Amino acid sequence: MITERRLARMRRVLERRHDDLVVVIEDIHDAHNASAILRSCDAFGIGRVALVYTNQVFPEISGGVAAQVQKWLQIDRYESPEACVAALHDEGIKVYATDLSEQSQDYLDVDFSGPTAIVLGNEHSGCSPEMAARADGSLIVPMVGFVQSLNVSVAAAVLMSEIARQRRGREPVWTTHKAEMERAWIERESTRPSDRLISDVV
Amino acid sequence: MITERRLARMRRVLERRHDDLVVVIEDIHDAHNASAILRSCDAFGIGRVALVYTNQVFPEISGGVAAQVQKWLQIDRYESPEACVAALHDEGIKVYATDLSEQSQDYLDVDFSGPTAIVLGNEHSGCSPEMAARADGSLIVPMVGFVQSLNVSVAAAVLMSEIARQRRGREPVWTTHKAEMERAWIERESTRPSDRLISDVV
Repeated sequence: MITERRLARMRRVLERRHDDLVVVIEDIHDAHNASAILRSCDAFGIGRVALVYTNQVFPEISGGVAAQVQKWLQIDRYESPEACVAALHDEGIKVYATDLSEQSQDYLDVDFSGPTAIVLGNEHSGCSPEMAARADGSLIVPMVGFVQSLNVSVAAAVLMSEIARQRRGREPVWTTHKAEMERAWIERESTRPSDRLISDVV
Repeated sequence: MITERRLARMRRVLERRHDDLVVVIEDIHDAHNASAILRSCDAFGIGRVALVYTNQVFPEISGGVAAQVQKWLQIDRYESPEACVAALHDEGIKVYATDLSEQSQDYLDVDFSGPTAIVLGNEHSGCSPEMAARADGSLIVPMVGFVQSLNVSVAAAVLMSEIARQRRGREPVWTTHKAEMERAWIERESTRPSDRLISDVV
């Protein structure tokens, strides 16, 4: 069984999630970075994550908050950048790669009000050329110091916070997808009560 | 001797730094977090860092980009939160603690156009009560998920990016402090050319 309080908490989180936002993680190898990105997704109301791992293995996230957060995210795996972008495009989602190329737009100039995916690439090599070629655009967080790159989990959070800022005050809609998630969560929580991973907060 | 190219690079970084912004790091114990924060300071044009370590030791930052970045930041140590806030107030700098209290303001509602310091507290206990008591206000990055906190280096970057966003298009002024820094950097680089830590980018 599931308590009213837990149910209300789950519903409140679902209600505030933006169903038309996806964070794509491509070949990020460091567990600390992957963990921080998942934690930020939860924090900023992005419930959907896509994994594209062609040169790396998704790192095992074994402890801490992020290990618990994973359970509450929809995490889809794609076998290639092409397959990922095609699936997102089928849903009408615009895909932005993050990279340092000259053509990249300042993230503050991008309108994130529509369905949007942001792609975060490998710590050393960034997004794959295949991903960049198929994306609708590429973004950069401008930097004014000696260093030419931000930590990838930091860049991810900066982008997510800007998306949240632009959507501030706009109530996310309740979708059939959310209704399905709610059913799945209730089912899972009811049948495996011992598996309450964020029991202190839910 | 120092090359024209290096000199131009140093000057360009200094010109774009906001001299009236300070990031205060209080008892952050994880080297990965401290490193990411220093790297973000450089990236977002914040050249001044204050360390307040009363319960922890500032972690050794031995490798990676952040080890190199430290050299280009002005890092001041204070023996107590009181001493730190007093020194910042003497300069007319407003101090904002980050914390989860009910009184905290949404960071998006805060005007960062004036001289500002943000305080990032320990991973587990947050800012000290002494710091919170003396600060001019406290900030929160609103979260809408299951988890009640962001990774501290992520929160730091979100705050710094918002400060940079609010000041976008505003050219930082050249100050006597920057002129002094420039002289000190040239002196250091000229006398210890082998100590070129970010030689690839400077």
